[in-house]
Amino acid sequence: MTDNSLSGTPPPPGPPPSGRRGRSARRERRQSGSGVVHAPYLSRNIPTLDYLSDEGCEKIEAQTDRLLAEIGLEFRDDPEVLEIWKAAGASVDGERVRFPKGMLQELVKTAPAQFTQHARNRARSVEIGGNNTVFAPVYGPPFVTDLDQGRRYGTIEDFRNFVKLTYLSPYLHHSGGTVCEPVDLPVNKRHFDMVYSHIKYSDKPFMGSVTAPERAEDSVAMARIVFGEDFVDQNCVMIQLINANSPLVFDGTMLGALKVYARANQACIVSPFILAGAMSPVTVAGTLSQVLAEALAGCALTQLLRPGAPVVFGAFVSSISMQSGAPTFGSPEGTLLLNGAAKLARRVGLPFRSGGSFTASKVPDAQSAQESTHTITATVQAGVNFCLHAAGWLEGGLCSSYEKFILDADQLGMMHVLAKGIDLSDEAMAMDAFEEVGPGGHFLGAEHTQRNFESAFYRSAIADNNSYEQWLADGAYDAARRANIIWKDQLREYTGPELDPAIDEALLAFMTKRKESFPDSNV
Amino acid sequence: MTDNSLSGTPPPPGPPPSGRRGRSARRERRQSGSGVVHAPYLSRNIPTLDYLSDEGCEKIEAQTDRLLAEIGLEFRDDPEVLEIWKAAGASVDGERVRFPKGMLQELVKTAPAQFTQHARNRARSVEIGGNNTVFAPVYGPPFVTDLDQGRRYGTIEDFRNFVKLTYLSPYLHHSGGTVCEPVDLPVNKRHFDMVYSHIKYSDKPFMGSVTAPERAEDSVAMARIVFGEDFVDQNCVMIQLINANSPLVFDGTMLGALKVYARANQACIVSPFILAGAMSPVTVAGTLSQVLAEALAGCALTQLLRPGAPVVFGAFVSSISMQSGAPTFGSPEGTLLLNGAAKLARRVGLPFRSGGSFTASKVPDAQSAQESTHTITATVQAGVNFCLHAAGWLEGGLCSSYEKFILDADQLGMMHVLAKGIDLSDEAMAMDAFEEVGPGGHFLGAEHTQRNFESAFYRSAIADNNSYEQWLADGAYDAARRANIIWKDQLREYTGPELDPAIDEALLAFMTKRKESFPDSNV
Repeated sequence: MTDNSLSGTPPPPGPPPSGRRGRSARRERRQSGSGVVHAPYLSRNIPTLDYLSDEGCEKIEAQTDRLLAEIGLEFRDDPEVLEIWKAAGASVDGERVRFPKGMLQELVKTAPAQFTQHARNRARSVEIGGNNTVFAPVYGPPFVTDLDQGRRYGTIEDFRNFVKLTYLSPYLHHSGGTVCEPVDLPVNKRHFDMVYSHIKYSDKPFMGSVTAPERAEDSVAMARIVFGEDFVDQNCVMIQLINANSPLVFDGTMLGALKVYARANQACIVSPFILAGAMSPVTVAGTLSQVLAEALAGCALTQLLRPGAPVVFGAFVSSISMQSGAPTFGSPEGTLLLNGAAKLARRVGLPFRSGGSFTASKVPDAQSAQESTHTITATVQAGVNFCLHAAGWLEGGLCSSYEKFILDADQLGMMHVLAKGIDLSDEAMAMDAFEEVGPGGHFLGAEHTQRNFESAFYRSAIADNNSYEQWLADGAYDAARRANIIWKDQLREYTGPELDPAIDEALLAFMTKRKESFPDSNV
Repeated sequence: MTDNSLSGTPPPPGPPPSGRRGRSARRERRQSGSGVVHAPYLSRNIPTLDYLSDEGCEKIEAQTDRLLAEIGLEFRDDPEVLEIWKAAGASVDGERVRFPKGMLQELVKTAPAQFTQHARNRARSVEIGGNNTVFAPVYGPPFVTDLDQGRRYGTIEDFRNFVKLTYLSPYLHHSGGTVCEPVDLPVNKRHFDMVYSHIKYSDKPFMGSVTAPERAEDSVAMARIVFGEDFVDQNCVMIQLINANSPLVFDGTMLGALKVYARANQACIVSPFILAGAMSPVTVAGTLSQVLAEALAGCALTQLLRPGAPVVFGAFVSSISMQSGAPTFGSPEGTLLLNGAAKLARRVGLPFRSGGSFTASKVPDAQSAQESTHTITATVQAGVNFCLHAAGWLEGGLCSSYEKFILDADQLGMMHVLAKGIDLSDEAMAMDAFEEVGPGGHFLGAEHTQRNFESAFYRSAIADNNSYEQWLADGAYDAARRANIIWKDQLREYTGPELDPAIDEALLAFMTKRKESFPDSNV
């Protein structure tokens, strides 16, 4: 039967849970308010939609080979990486590196096609790859907004709030990373509080800091406190976003973080960050050949650092307005780019990250919903394995919106049902309902309906399906206004997962000691 | 290159155009404001998405055979139809008709898999079937709404306004039918003014009245004045919506209209109208078996009346809230239903009607956009051939919204780009752009970009992609508010297509004479 109890395979083995799961599971069900069971991740039971044929892929791959061999990529401000490439057989000319045909494709073969990212609550560990999709919240905005206070810089309190809302959603599987920038904390120390907040206020898997190699090291150190040193060395417990500086450049900051995480056996998502027309050609096919080149180069580098380290083929791709130069989201070209990149990643044999609930709108209005619905649908249909920005993204990623978060999470719930496809069991065929009801009858009272109505049809937390008159009587709220009520209710009623007090103390002691060891800085 | 000049094959032969096309074509381009060229219909160059496998279809078809043979359908208040079924070999028991296995599938084989519906402007004729999708506006709402005047009963002025807005949109191919109910006119005479408005204020194809057999006859008579009697007898110039009274009933009114149109060689869309859980079982698979039974029965009947008459397999399918009983739209179950019905129709070999821009929302807000984006995307991906309700639908179809119409039409524009798929021409591969720009460069100034930027990327009329600061300076409007400005501008600047004065006079004379021949009535 199609129902709201999400699919998903049993949780893989992992570290022992650090909280009392039975009690917290009951508490969560009460908090999410609708008897919905959390699934660790979405498992797709529908075919993958491909807008690109195999022949189309071959044409693009041939151009990627030319880009890699003739034009090459630049690896800036990191002599060690240049040495590594030279030793591996690439041609290095200054910071420009060119690759013989097939070299990178061969190198990425040591990376796993699918891997487990462990959560401190074992039931929340996620499988990244295959037919699975993992949803994580918005990443990176300096601003936050809500209908009550409007738009302002994000703070660590906002950060904790988005971690808590993510924890409470049955449709977000992953706590994410920089859910907003805590601008009230010094730039060079806020990573401690961000990583700690993910560990303390949630028990879902999370992301580490990438803004400097030493911040990456701090993130790994904190993960070791939670999961144990040996476990971290042998298992993935953090996943990190490593952006290419498109076109065809990796900068020293990203390379520094990539090296730390790959050597620590933690997952990198190597993501070309491309607004087509500016950072790539103004066409879908041309952009795809660049995406493949950049992702292959970054993913291959992780395997030279530690063969077998988990790595994800990423693609943040959209277009710009050719009239104003402004980034655009939810465009049909964005859908085609995402979809094409997904197929190219599958042919490489790596898990794929892309998509999210994108929009350029400044408010959670019709534009915001149209654009986000296009991108999140494209995400699921293309078979994306890891989806950052799945909830809360507004204003081209500059702003985390509380109301948008709630609206998006509801869409993610729908995606879970869609991904299950059409149930063809005898119970779903409902022949007995026809025999009972017959022509001109009504199915509401049928025995089959009574048997199945509780689990039938996705139940939206946001949609108002009532009559116009009832809607007026209820205050004539639009969807954003209803979302405003929901997130405030959720934060008010939030109760966090338990965290082993010894681990908590060790984390706080580590953070205090490290913070005291160097001065605050906003660089 | 991906561009805004829509695809579509050359117009098929038809009656001579009744206006001066060169001048009116220029005028339209000016009115639509962006150099966008009208295409007569959307031609899909992307694969059809199927959530249902062939084996799944066979299971559903087997149950449909049982429904038809064991339970049967009721054809109410029409003894002639019962006689026709009896003569054709069905088993008739009172008003209940049961069908031997395969009978209906055999009967529909005389119907065309694809046909032309001619417009009075030959360039606007549409091909219904195959890889084509025809978009028509909302059908049926008694209410209209806009941000200035709010919600009220529709009038003939509103009706004309929606015909004009549809005429002006490059992304709506068809003028539709009851774009809103003109409640200010008597029920038994408003069909004259509706059909006349479609002919007078637009030159796109349109729909006839189905609310009584004599109103169907009037519609055919008016079409004969425009196109000529012989032409109408040999060609499709009107398409009509014939709803089943689900479950498993056709009523006398619908049968009366179906008989008039099929005998006149005009197209019927035979549409099960199903809110699953109420008018069908509470499951997708069970509902699909019913959709197939109802559509097959209605479509087959047209072929008994006139073999070869054009007919469309329709499916208006959504779900209800199992908590309140209210209709729900844009649900994942609705997507699966639409998609499954499309594949069943393809296997029968008939053109398929479904989808639209559905929502249960009362305002053009985020809920409205989420739900409509889900349904219109599902519509195009499933390969729907005729899409009613493509723009303007609000409040579960009870209300035609001016702002929603503009928002939806913009989405239809995006669908045209998406449906073209990924261009893999050498120009789209853009190798020369890479050679010019190289690592770390910027593509905006590249020669390839200059060559292609005008036609690259869909240009939304609604989306605001500017910075937050610019958006504030522009008035901080949400998408609905921007749409409000657009529809008023469009109606202010509307200039209609020319209509042969002799035809116009003949239509008005026919209407006057008929209206005077019987008293007004609101039944």
